[in-house]
Amino acid sequence: MEKLFFASDYMEGAHPKILDKLIETNLLKTPGYGTDAFCESARAKIRVACDAPNAEVYFLPGGTQTNAMIINYLLRPYQGVIAAVTGHIEGHEAGAIENGGHKIFCVPEHNGKLTAEDVEKTAKKYYEDDNRDHMVMPGMVYISQPTESGTLYSLSELESISAVCKAYDLYLYADGARLAYALSCPSNDVTLPDMARLCDVFYIGGTKCGALLGEGVVIPKPGIIPHFFTLMKQHGALMAKGRVMGIQFDTLFTDDLYFEIGRSAVGLADKIRQKLQEKGLELCYGSPTNQVFVRLTDAMRAKLEEKVTVSFWEKPDDSHTVIRLATSWATTTQNVEKLLEIIDQL
Amino acid sequence: MEKLFFASDYMEGAHPKILDKLIETNLLKTPGYGTDAFCESARAKIRVACDAPNAEVYFLPGGTQTNAMIINYLLRPYQGVIAAVTGHIEGHEAGAIENGGHKIFCVPEHNGKLTAEDVEKTAKKYYEDDNRDHMVMPGMVYISQPTESGTLYSLSELESISAVCKAYDLYLYADGARLAYALSCPSNDVTLPDMARLCDVFYIGGTKCGALLGEGVVIPKPGIIPHFFTLMKQHGALMAKGRVMGIQFDTLFTDDLYFEIGRSAVGLADKIRQKLQEKGLELCYGSPTNQVFVRLTDAMRAKLEEKVTVSFWEKPDDSHTVIRLATSWATTTQNVEKLLEIIDQL
Amino acid sequence: MEKLFFASDYMEGAHPKILDKLIETNLLKTPGYGTDAFCESARAKIRVACDAPNAEVYFLPGGTQTNAMIINYLLRPYQGVIAAVTGHIEGHEAGAIENGGHKIFCVPEHNGKLTAEDVEKTAKKYYEDDNRDHMVMPGMVYISQPTESGTLYSLSELESISAVCKAYDLYLYADGARLAYALSCPSNDVTLPDMARLCDVFYIGGTKCGALLGEGVVIPKPGIIPHFFTLMKQHGALMAKGRVMGIQFDTLFTDDLYFEIGRSAVGLADKIRQKLQEKGLELCYGSPTNQVFVRLTDAMRAKLEEKVTVSFWEKPDDSHTVIRLATSWATTTQNVEKLLEIIDQL
Amino acid sequence: MEKLFFASDYMEGAHPKILDKLIETNLLKTPGYGTDAFCESARAKIRVACDAPNAEVYFLPGGTQTNAMIINYLLRPYQGVIAAVTGHIEGHEAGAIENGGHKIFCVPEHNGKLTAEDVEKTAKKYYEDDNRDHMVMPGMVYISQPTESGTLYSLSELESISAVCKAYDLYLYADGARLAYALSCPSNDVTLPDMARLCDVFYIGGTKCGALLGEGVVIPKPGIIPHFFTLMKQHGALMAKGRVMGIQFDTLFTDDLYFEIGRSAVGLADKIRQKLQEKGLELCYGSPTNQVFVRLTDAMRAKLEEKVTVSFWEKPDDSHTVIRLATSWATTTQNVEKLLEIIDQL
Repeated sequence: MEKLFFASDYMEGAHPKILDKLIETNLLKTPGYGTDAFCESARAKIRVACDAPNAEVYFLPGGTQTNAMIINYLLRPYQGVIAAVTGHIEGHEAGAIENGGHKIFCVPEHNGKLTAEDVEKTAKKYYEDDNRDHMVMPGMVYISQPTESGTLYSLSELESISAVCKAYDLYLYADGARLAYALSCPSNDVTLPDMARLCDVFYIGGTKCGALLGEGVVIPKPGIIPHFFTLMKQHGALMAKGRVMGIQFDTLFTDDLYFEIGRSAVGLADKIRQKLQEKGLELCYGSPTNQVFVRLTDAMRAKLEEKVTVSFWEKPDDSHTVIRLATSWATTTQNVEKLLEIIDQL
Repeated sequence: MEKLFFASDYMEGAHPKILDKLIETNLLKTPGYGTDAFCESARAKIRVACDAPNAEVYFLPGGTQTNAMIINYLLRPYQGVIAAVTGHIEGHEAGAIENGGHKIFCVPEHNGKLTAEDVEKTAKKYYEDDNRDHMVMPGMVYISQPTESGTLYSLSELESISAVCKAYDLYLYADGARLAYALSCPSNDVTLPDMARLCDVFYIGGTKCGALLGEGVVIPKPGIIPHFFTLMKQHGALMAKGRVMGIQFDTLFTDDLYFEIGRSAVGLADKIRQKLQEKGLELCYGSPTNQVFVRLTDAMRAKLEEKVTVSFWEKPDDSHTVIRLATSWATTTQNVEKLLEIIDQL
Repeated sequence: MEKLFFASDYMEGAHPKILDKLIETNLLKTPGYGTDAFCESARAKIRVACDAPNAEVYFLPGGTQTNAMIINYLLRPYQGVIAAVTGHIEGHEAGAIENGGHKIFCVPEHNGKLTAEDVEKTAKKYYEDDNRDHMVMPGMVYISQPTESGTLYSLSELESISAVCKAYDLYLYADGARLAYALSCPSNDVTLPDMARLCDVFYIGGTKCGALLGEGVVIPKPGIIPHFFTLMKQHGALMAKGRVMGIQFDTLFTDDLYFEIGRSAVGLADKIRQKLQEKGLELCYGSPTNQVFVRLTDAMRAKLEEKVTVSFWEKPDDSHTVIRLATSWATTTQNVEKLLEIIDQL
Repeated sequence: MEKLFFASDYMEGAHPKILDKLIETNLLKTPGYGTDAFCESARAKIRVACDAPNAEVYFLPGGTQTNAMIINYLLRPYQGVIAAVTGHIEGHEAGAIENGGHKIFCVPEHNGKLTAEDVEKTAKKYYEDDNRDHMVMPGMVYISQPTESGTLYSLSELESISAVCKAYDLYLYADGARLAYALSCPSNDVTLPDMARLCDVFYIGGTKCGALLGEGVVIPKPGIIPHFFTLMKQHGALMAKGRVMGIQFDTLFTDDLYFEIGRSAVGLADKIRQKLQEKGLELCYGSPTNQVFVRLTDAMRAKLEEKVTVSFWEKPDDSHTVIRLATSWATTTQNVEKLLEIIDQL
């Protein structure tokens, strides 16, 4: 029997509707660099979805580049960014933020999330220090929605964080690499308009939500990063065939496809979670989105991995492992059924 | 009548064979970040085509990023790069090279090309200056093949430049954004193995040669940029779905497609050039590749632009304009015929 | 006979009055980092001398660092600086400006000076280019007063440059490494208040005008570089014993010492110039300040260098050399007399 | 009664012998940029003192700049530096290290020191992570001797750290801003030759050890940072009147002055420590060098500060404060006697 793949949500190409649109439009001639009609249409739809009629919207090829650019160009050289110690920028982007010149202030994580209290503590510590002029000034908060642990900030949590940010003159930036799975999660109460209202910048992830590549940066209040187009060019983020991303985002924001992709993946992840719990296995971090984290004995893990490709997450002790199972637009009900059977026999 | 488009070589999507392959492979599951089998296969084919069995090959999304990374990571902080004043890095990449910390030493251009003599002069000027320790050291030569003016370095020119580079300890780096059109040009005598033998690094352009996106960096002698994979991650050039580029380059280097794309586009450009010359119009720079540059009176230009989309190139005097007409894989014989008729009636 | 030294204006320690003050204050206890009473006093005196009561004044150890910081922190990452091709930042600061991420746009030099016309041409070229969003935006003009060739901008030239800067939204920054020799030059008509009125930032050179080290940055309109103190710390320009520079600048701006140093050096340089002209030798560039440039046959040069240490400047042809003779606070009338005799016998 | 000053060790000018030498040599003419005979003499003496005949020695104006340069130029862009969380580079240099592009890996501090075990743990964590190519590679260990808490690494500790560094290919760099007080401390067993043998780079602090300014960088194995002179120029660390630092270091390394300054200050600090302990007060961190840390009730602190200027260090609880008293070459026995009386009466 062929192995089942649940290791990640970006192991296939693109959602079929995206691919269809790429084929359909292939011979149309467009100007380059994101100035084409597909990009414009995608921008317009995203502005509507975010209820942010004046938002600037840009399409960048990848998440690390997006994070590096937004953080670098929102901050002044004497400022740093506050992030949970598990934040993607801290451990998994090869130092891209520091390479841009900025310190990351790590605060504790709670299932992947930081708290308004810890943000405030960090800001206060700076402002109460007589030597602060010799120190890096906190200038921004970085969060991800969902987090690296698959969890979600509630609207009330996001509002608290936003309030602290305003009080201490911190930008709030949200990494939405997997935003589709947040927006479509039954327990989620943060909408795109909420994101646009509470964040200074955020991005709508494409690569991990059904696109071949591409992340859609939303800057609700235009002008806070002047000449972003030129900065994209300078940073190598301006694609000559910008339409490739425009067509994809236009499709994702047509007929609710972005939300549909999220809904389907989260629904299947819920089925997996239910089965794991029925088996008495311990789910980790409390992820309600498309990433399922479960603690297995090493024996169980070995048995599972004979038939299923999963992601190693961490080793809480000598005899157990936390693994990740991820669903996506490409996950079929049929394969989930097979997985449930395999879990049953663990 | 619909307008004809000859403004550039990246106004459409991808060559149909590439699109077919993307569709065909869409549901196959692969690991991320360029570690998949398609990337491996593409690398293997490129190594063969370059006769460089040990070459490192990487796929990056765009040309500016590629140039910025290669130049930044080959050079030490006290070094700069020599380029023709018309070099793409000097005027059209929004300062990406300086943003990486390096000065560009401009030398004169001759139809877009620099000369071994001017490289030597620049290097000598540095080494003969008693104050050179207060100055930027030339550390690299940047050329493009074909150049921004569509012209080609001959093998003998390239060997001369390489010899000067070796004599003065300069890396030689070639930007091959449109390399397909060089390799397939009847008057070209520089092969991929020549490039691999004479350059320290070069890249095989995808975006402007039929791919949706992607540039294939070739480092013939492995190890000269240690940890390039991590540097790609840090610089935002490592795509999660690296397969998108692997599949495209694998296709481009299957059954000679890359060369076929070049051949077809240059053949059609030759027809356009022939017609322009028959009309007694002045071709500029001597480009033998897919970019046709022609000097028109402003009246002619206006008349042409009623029916054809072209690129403005420069204004040599008050009453004339140089425009560019570019062909690509997407240019049809039929449309070229129409263009020739339009030219006839200018 | 001992050799005479006219090679440069920074071959000795400090003006005796500065040294006296360092000795006198040596045991006084002060807080660090430029927050001491000497720095405050020096700042107050400079504000008065510049007729700029709200100016921010900072003391940095050296000129290259000052140039790099001011240019880097005034410009945004997508901007570059316009300078004469002979500007100190272009050829003699080891790429410090590019290391900070910024391109230098070189314009022609006329005896070391750039013109308002060339600045305007550079700015216009950018703003008239349809592709300017792919290009570096001119954001600043760098001049030096006196220039690297010892020449001076007249008030009317400075006002023209300033007007162009205002029209094209360019900062105007003046490098005053040798400002004392400009301010005290009989033919000069640009005062410190003029500098403060016309420049966004300029610096009053200490190292080459009698101090052991130190440059006094003047920012007439406060706040244009927020948190400059922290940026100094970050860039390694904040000295723990900031008083060392405060004491020196306080002394330089007491009883007109800064002007007196300039006057004395320029007066002696004038004597040298007069003698050279009497001998029928060709003075170069038209420097009226403390740097004397003269064109000698190589034979004359060899003869002169037997008895006098000079600086090589350039080689206009195979049989001639331009050399520099520089005076300073440490140049004695007695040594100038000896030099005049030597010149007589050339 | 005038207030006593024990707040820091850089509140005065220079040691009288240094000042004498500056006066004595003031009118001697020397070439610039550290190429003068005083710098050469100082270098030679430092090489002898370090038993490192081939060492490169450079003089830089300040410590932050020195740390930023050494770390930036030893590391490759994909590498970071390991430091104790209390390391000067982490909290007190305004982000200079990140500004140079590098992440700081913080490890726990033990009275200001890090341990070989924690270094190894950090390195191992990286090398055992399958995703390490997406992460920053540890490339260096930063320590200070004495530490920010005044404590000393023993020879055996330093050898352990060095061994781990060699095992994991990490450079070892020591910040010796207050090295004089380490070298002259009775409990110290790490000599300058030990430093030169075990560290890849270290610096001999001048500013906080009796000089007006200046830090002496020692690179025992020459060539590991090629073109350091040019890098100094580029980074604004190359002083035109380099002799200012040469003269000072030449004096500090004549007749053991550097050690004598350390001895005297540590001896007086010991007297203060003895008195504090007699009073039953709690000394903190175990500093045996010129910095005395003591925990006082807030009432005591207020009483002490009526007569003595001290440094606030930290607030361990609501009613206590840790303060710092520092001695230097400028601390007189007489003033220490007065301080002891004041302590007696607390």
